[in-house]
Amino acid sequence: MKNMIIPIFFLFSLLFSSSLGAIQDFCVADYSAPQGPAGYSCKNPAKVTVDNFVYSGLGVPGNTTNIIKAAVTTAFDNQFPGVNGLGISLARADLAPSGVIPFHTHRGASEIIIVIEGTITAGFVSSANKVYLKTLKKGDIMLFPQGLLHFQLNVGKTSALFFVGFNSPNPGLQLLDFALFANDLPTELVAAASFLSPAEIKKLKAVLGGTG
Amino acid sequence: MKNMIIPIFFLFSLLFSSSLGAIQDFCVADYSAPQGPAGYSCKNPAKVTVDNFVYSGLGVPGNTTNIIKAAVTTAFDNQFPGVNGLGISLARADLAPSGVIPFHTHRGASEIIIVIEGTITAGFVSSANKVYLKTLKKGDIMLFPQGLLHFQLNVGKTSALFFVGFNSPNPGLQLLDFALFANDLPTELVAAASFLSPAEIKKLKAVLGGTG
Amino acid sequence: MKNMIIPIFFLFSLLFSSSLGAIQDFCVADYSAPQGPAGYSCKNPAKVTVDNFVYSGLGVPGNTTNIIKAAVTTAFDNQFPGVNGLGISLARADLAPSGVIPFHTHRGASEIIIVIEGTITAGFVSSANKVYLKTLKKGDIMLFPQGLLHFQLNVGKTSALFFVGFNSPNPGLQLLDFALFANDLPTELVAAASFLSPAEIKKLKAVLGGTG
Amino acid sequence: MKNMIIPIFFLFSLLFSSSLGAIQDFCVADYSAPQGPAGYSCKNPAKVTVDNFVYSGLGVPGNTTNIIKAAVTTAFDNQFPGVNGLGISLARADLAPSGVIPFHTHRGASEIIIVIEGTITAGFVSSANKVYLKTLKKGDIMLFPQGLLHFQLNVGKTSALFFVGFNSPNPGLQLLDFALFANDLPTELVAAASFLSPAEIKKLKAVLGGTG
Amino acid sequence: MKNMIIPIFFLFSLLFSSSLGAIQDFCVADYSAPQGPAGYSCKNPAKVTVDNFVYSGLGVPGNTTNIIKAAVTTAFDNQFPGVNGLGISLARADLAPSGVIPFHTHRGASEIIIVIEGTITAGFVSSANKVYLKTLKKGDIMLFPQGLLHFQLNVGKTSALFFVGFNSPNPGLQLLDFALFANDLPTELVAAASFLSPAEIKKLKAVLGGTG
Amino acid sequence: MKNMIIPIFFLFSLLFSSSLGAIQDFCVADYSAPQGPAGYSCKNPAKVTVDNFVYSGLGVPGNTTNIIKAAVTTAFDNQFPGVNGLGISLARADLAPSGVIPFHTHRGASEIIIVIEGTITAGFVSSANKVYLKTLKKGDIMLFPQGLLHFQLNVGKTSALFFVGFNSPNPGLQLLDFALFANDLPTELVAAASFLSPAEIKKLKAVLGGTG
Repeated sequence: MKNMIIPIFFLFSLLFSSSLGAIQDFCVADYSAPQGPAGYSCKNPAKVTVDNFVYSGLGVPGNTTNIIKAAVTTAFDNQFPGVNGLGISLARADLAPSGVIPFHTHRGASEIIIVIEGTITAGFVSSANKVYLKTLKKGDIMLFPQGLLHFQLNVGKTSALFFVGFNSPNPGLQLLDFALFANDLPTELVAAASFLSPAEIKKLKAVLGGTG
Repeated sequence: MKNMIIPIFFLFSLLFSSSLGAIQDFCVADYSAPQGPAGYSCKNPAKVTVDNFVYSGLGVPGNTTNIIKAAVTTAFDNQFPGVNGLGISLARADLAPSGVIPFHTHRGASEIIIVIEGTITAGFVSSANKVYLKTLKKGDIMLFPQGLLHFQLNVGKTSALFFVGFNSPNPGLQLLDFALFANDLPTELVAAASFLSPAEIKKLKAVLGGTG
Repeated sequence: MKNMIIPIFFLFSLLFSSSLGAIQDFCVADYSAPQGPAGYSCKNPAKVTVDNFVYSGLGVPGNTTNIIKAAVTTAFDNQFPGVNGLGISLARADLAPSGVIPFHTHRGASEIIIVIEGTITAGFVSSANKVYLKTLKKGDIMLFPQGLLHFQLNVGKTSALFFVGFNSPNPGLQLLDFALFANDLPTELVAAASFLSPAEIKKLKAVLGGTG
Repeated sequence: MKNMIIPIFFLFSLLFSSSLGAIQDFCVADYSAPQGPAGYSCKNPAKVTVDNFVYSGLGVPGNTTNIIKAAVTTAFDNQFPGVNGLGISLARADLAPSGVIPFHTHRGASEIIIVIEGTITAGFVSSANKVYLKTLKKGDIMLFPQGLLHFQLNVGKTSALFFVGFNSPNPGLQLLDFALFANDLPTELVAAASFLSPAEIKKLKAVLGGTG
Repeated sequence: MKNMIIPIFFLFSLLFSSSLGAIQDFCVADYSAPQGPAGYSCKNPAKVTVDNFVYSGLGVPGNTTNIIKAAVTTAFDNQFPGVNGLGISLARADLAPSGVIPFHTHRGASEIIIVIEGTITAGFVSSANKVYLKTLKKGDIMLFPQGLLHFQLNVGKTSALFFVGFNSPNPGLQLLDFALFANDLPTELVAAASFLSPAEIKKLKAVLGGTG
Repeated sequence: MKNMIIPIFFLFSLLFSSSLGAIQDFCVADYSAPQGPAGYSCKNPAKVTVDNFVYSGLGVPGNTTNIIKAAVTTAFDNQFPGVNGLGISLARADLAPSGVIPFHTHRGASEIIIVIEGTITAGFVSSANKVYLKTLKKGDIMLFPQGLLHFQLNVGKTSALFFVGFNSPNPGLQLLDFALFANDLPTELVAAASFLSPAEIKKLKAVLGGTG
């Protein structure tokens, strides 16, 4: 059968014979080339290695010595070039006791979490303002539909860890407090658009570094 | 040339000869049949009339004698069956002087507005917490990318009117105050997930009818 | 509470720490970089301002002193860079009395119009050759499903104005008369493919500047 | 190794153990259940056979003894249930000498043709009114981008046959002459929206069975 | 401020006043209604509870006492109704020492894994037949682009556990050995289409319960 | 009527007046510019000619004097620039008697074939390991859902020819034997992940040029 090696390679070269560009199964981000609505430009496939598809950054617990006693570590397309164009990404959340991932939304993805350690209470609010609230333990998974306000709170006595899957390489992350209080949107506009009291707004602007 | 009528109809019947189901250019919502992830089931095309594609509900100003001095009137797929499956919808916003469409998000659509009357200040906040803020007059249009927190405020001395286009028949609408304060999410959870003071939360829960 | 400012910023910088590229909520068109199937390349987000999301070009009535007594002014992605990648755009149509937006199609978007002034008769034709025809007054909205032939005619005694929403930043616009008569497609081919008489074709080619 | 049969089946049953519904790789149309924006409901997968994925209707030449000396035979989702949900379909076109597939558009698909017999001249017109025109012989393929007006004309002395691929199970088909002249759209509206002369319109309405 | 409760509810009821159907942020699967190309029909939103978005089935290790010394437990749309329409799902893989998830593909999703326990060697093969192979330890993540052949092998001395995210609620799963050897495809056809020897095929058919 | 030429051109120039970039109905691949997740960058539309949409490469039978007695000739986006961004492509398959297109998958497209000459037996295997097998003659069409393993075998006494439509410009093509045996994946890993015997693997690696 060995004398058939040459002809089958001949077929093979016919199938992939173009000198114009390689067939691409993936589009590893090339951060030095233009970005478009569908994501980053693709790295030359000849230079892609397995290491473009592997990431170790989620193996390290985040530092939770901060005001929210929590940390989120992401593997989105701006950190992990392999997810570009694949419609998927991952993150990890570490919460010390009483730690919280405060109210936030992801404009571009639905989210699914799996609890690895600890006990958390998580909830989201629908467009109809109904609250979907649940206390989750190790091994439980929970869904957060795209774009809806949600939070996760460590209600146990030990640290909590969960991983977060997204169906986008670029889910976006808008933390409510930062959006309202960590920028230069004038207090009177925040008040007018939120019905919060100016005193409350100014207090949180001070904490979060907002001005105006 | 009249003796050619029959053969050309013959072609025509060949092209559309199936007795199994009609070719559909649209899918007008049948509210009595199941709904799926892509929208409502389609009304029998033989029963579709032009009136399924026309809606007069946006021709009437909304009633602005309320706390926000504003009203939003929508033509989404649950009111206007023609938009089902077409990836588009419309709404109108009426704002009395000082009226406001408070902070809100649309999980499922980007938004474009056109100011018809009055002067408004509108803004959105990005994932990077940068504020994009502009005062708009008659004829101006402004974009609000999908899922980002935004608001519109009448800063003129007269009523304001703008129309709102969405690239979904079901954009969703999550008003921040209602999501936080108009349901039964316990005050201590709202506080933990928002860093607002319990007093502020209870005050707004009272206004908006929330409990807990 | 002020001594907590530093740790929370620490979290913040963790969340957005990548030096490789910014998280993008939008992709404002950079007309100087390559265009791809999903649209234009994205402008550097650090250089994006609110003015990229605001456009005043639709505030000015189009000039209707022409053969169709009408004008269409567009805010598509080649004029309004903010819509790039957002799946939405807008246009305005001005029609003097008896003015018409002649038969046309949009290959890439469904359309929704809202009448602001005047009275128009609008219609579209389905793949089954059924006509959906309606006379619309101020405040009425009407849908035109993607890719179907349609027109709008001012049937009132005053000017008409309507705005047009599309669910694409690049809907395309193919005006039937221009496609048939305003180019160099030979008269005999137009005749063979349309069953119009050569005399009729030549007459309209003369009006619209076609050759052949 | 045979004593391992049971355990591996155990894995297998774990993987597919749900009694709630089968994993579906396809969604063969069930014409008796509701249709939605994404297509027909799925036939019970237990009742799907290979014959749902095979169709012989394109093996028979269409009857070209008609005014256009041509016939189009389609395998769209309303005739061929297997294409439902798969984003693809096929058609065949038979043209006697001088036969023509007149100007038409497909609102929902791009088209690619392959010439099997004969010589045709085919063309499409872009939104910029540029004509892309080519004479094709056996083995040539040509593209027609979604929603653009196009035609195919047999310019040889023998019959022509080509097959047509679409990237939708429901591409739609709007034949220009039928849309303009084969329905009850009043002559004066057709004239106003097309600039064709009333006489020309009435002549073609008579040929195609239109009224008004 | 309490006297404003009524008017703001008035706005609220205007915004969501339709009696025709509720605005839907999600589409929890109703297994008793028809399924379409986009997924299952939606459960009545009034009957949806948080438990539709929570699943505990991945908290239990799979039974690895089988031929592959491994087990995969899925939370796809046919088991976990909440993922329907959300474009996301999850699975867990347990591998005893030397356990393997043999060569397989997912027709409908890209995959991202996170190793929780143990050490695995994982690999995928591209269309260009290049192998992307890596040994992963706890905390490492790896991507497997949609539709490409891949496997995971426990190369450590202890059990391995990893979770698997997919960007579809219905990724599909085609195990190579089962596709080739666990059905009634005749041995001579398997041989002709795979170049494996009939003896090898018959041996594996016997193990996996195939016939023919 | 000729004195109306100027005003109508005035409208025309209004509609397409942007100097920033042309409206694009297509995106012909520019192989010298960056590639992104949605495909190649677009060629300057002013330089696009009809020849970018026409391809003659499928008019020539492939050379079948090889081990599989078959040849596949593709018109994918890396060979045929016009399909870029249009979501469609085509290929031809030539099979000498007993020729076979061995087991393979397309990660990115569903497939539809039309038999032009000869008699083939074709089959695919579902995720449920069910075989869908059929013998096809001239004029028959058959579907192969995205990502499922399939093959085509010439069972007639003469050459067979079929054309293949895909709903992607870049369907991908993973030939099972090449993926398993034509690279450097070590024999023991192939054996562990496929349950094939090392001897069988080494034999096929020798034939196909694999190492390890």
